Amino acid sequence: MSKSILSESPEFNYSEQSNYYNPEAFTELVSNRRSCRVYSDEQIPEEIMLKCLDLALLAPNSSNMQPWEFYWVRSEDKRNKLTSYCLNQNTVKTAAEMIVVVARTDTWKRNSKLMLEAFETQEIKVPKSATQYYSKIVPLAYNQGFLGWLGMIKRIVFSIIALRKPMVRQPKSTADMRVWSNKSTALACENLMLAFRAYGYDTCPIEGLDQRRVRRMLNLPYGKAEVCMAISVGRRAENGIYGPRIRFDSSLFIKEV
Amino acid sequence: MSKSILSESPEFNYSEQSNYYNPEAFTELVSNRRSCRVYSDEQIPEEIMLKCLDLALLAPNSSNMQPWEFYWVRSEDKRNKLTSYCLNQNTVKTAAEMIVVVARTDTWKRNSKLMLEAFETQEIKVPKSATQYYSKIVPLAYNQGFLGWLGMIKRIVFSIIALRKPMVRQPKSTADMRVWSNKSTALACENLMLAFRAYGYDTCPIEGLDQRRVRRMLNLPYGKAEVCMAISVGRRAENGIYGPRIRFDSSLFIKEV
Repeated sequence: MSKSILSESPEFNYSEQSNYYNPEAFTELVSNRRSCRVYSDEQIPEEIMLKCLDLALLAPNSSNMQPWEFYWVRSEDKRNKLTSYCLNQNTVKTAAEMIVVVARTDTWKRNSKLMLEAFETQEIKVPKSATQYYSKIVPLAYNQGFLGWLGMIKRIVFSIIALRKPMVRQPKSTADMRVWSNKSTALACENLMLAFRAYGYDTCPIEGLDQRRVRRMLNLPYGKAEVCMAISVGRRAENGIYGPRIRFDSSLFIKEV
Repeated sequence: MSKSILSESPEFNYSEQSNYYNPEAFTELVSNRRSCRVYSDEQIPEEIMLKCLDLALLAPNSSNMQPWEFYWVRSEDKRNKLTSYCLNQNTVKTAAEMIVVVARTDTWKRNSKLMLEAFETQEIKVPKSATQYYSKIVPLAYNQGFLGWLGMIKRIVFSIIALRKPMVRQPKSTADMRVWSNKSTALACENLMLAFRAYGYDTCPIEGLDQRRVRRMLNLPYGKAEVCMAISVGRRAENGIYGPRIRFDSSLFIKEV
């Protein structure tokens, strides 16, 4: 189905090389990122906020559908509400800034059209299989229909085809679409948190929040958008990190097969 | 409920500061990371594979439950199968190495116990609220019961409490647990992909795969583990990147409220 664009040699006449090599800087960056629970009262320049948000947008994501949204909560009223919706956690109370990161299961419709427009305007010639991917495969893959009826049909049809040969079977339900959108959005969240650390600031990802109240505050459409996580940002206080990092034995997580 | 550990000033006597500041290196790293579709035949030293996997494990994650697993597919037989399960995509066919990243919804049981053990053995005194968080709150939050019956009850009880005050209502279903585990796992995936780029290698995240066949190949328990994404790794070929990066207008994604 989506075989042509993915497995055949494309006809693009494009080359992009990279000599980037700096394992030390990245190792140090990752080692220095800790979830910060208490911030100092130092503010963050607006310019740095925007630069870090822009770096988040460069994360890889599913079919380039960029299913994320970043709500930078600046109004005092919303900020106070958000603090209470996060159960007054220290990391939120003391944060210089708060960003609510939202995963959307509906914006692929708009974004697949934007992708086709981008293909038309760019200088590089795009093969037909790529435009077909966005005009036909993406709507087929992501549209689950009202109450998921289309997903149900796909589930049955794909299961039958998959008896014979390997087949991409997901997303085939509204739950799968939630998983799908949160996955790409989380990739961007990690970029964002590392970006702030690179600029000397700290963050903490927050899932312990009242999903419904935050969603209403941001006027997010029910069933099409959910909070992936909120992220607090600021300058680490003296007592900002609660203890040494704990990671269990890596053999529990890394397996060679 | 989980208020004490999160919103009260803890009694830890611990301080960890960081002077790390290197926005240029991270900006360059993120800008140079592109999803690579064709790799050269250069191999990757085992040492670098392991270093990058270790950096993945340092990602932030929900309640430190580290719900991820990284299957480095080294056997020729499994690698061939995986290539076919990924529909023979170029990025898989030509990759020097393949890693299947798995999100688990069940390992929090083991890991919450490991967390309590870690508290006992570390030098820093841990307040009672933290041990209670892992002995009581975590099981209450993540256990959904057989076929989700416990989740249903929690959903009702928490909804009633939430009429009065903000309340953490999720995860309250098996679907929520899938979202939860994939989210943390994706944070680690982004670390992993950036780590390889920092070491001079490229990656491509792959969701277009036969979830069931891959799960069976890895002997993953049904309903408790799913493939978050596969990641191909290698040295970028001349024609590895198919075109210039496309990102839609940032005003679609970044909103100040």
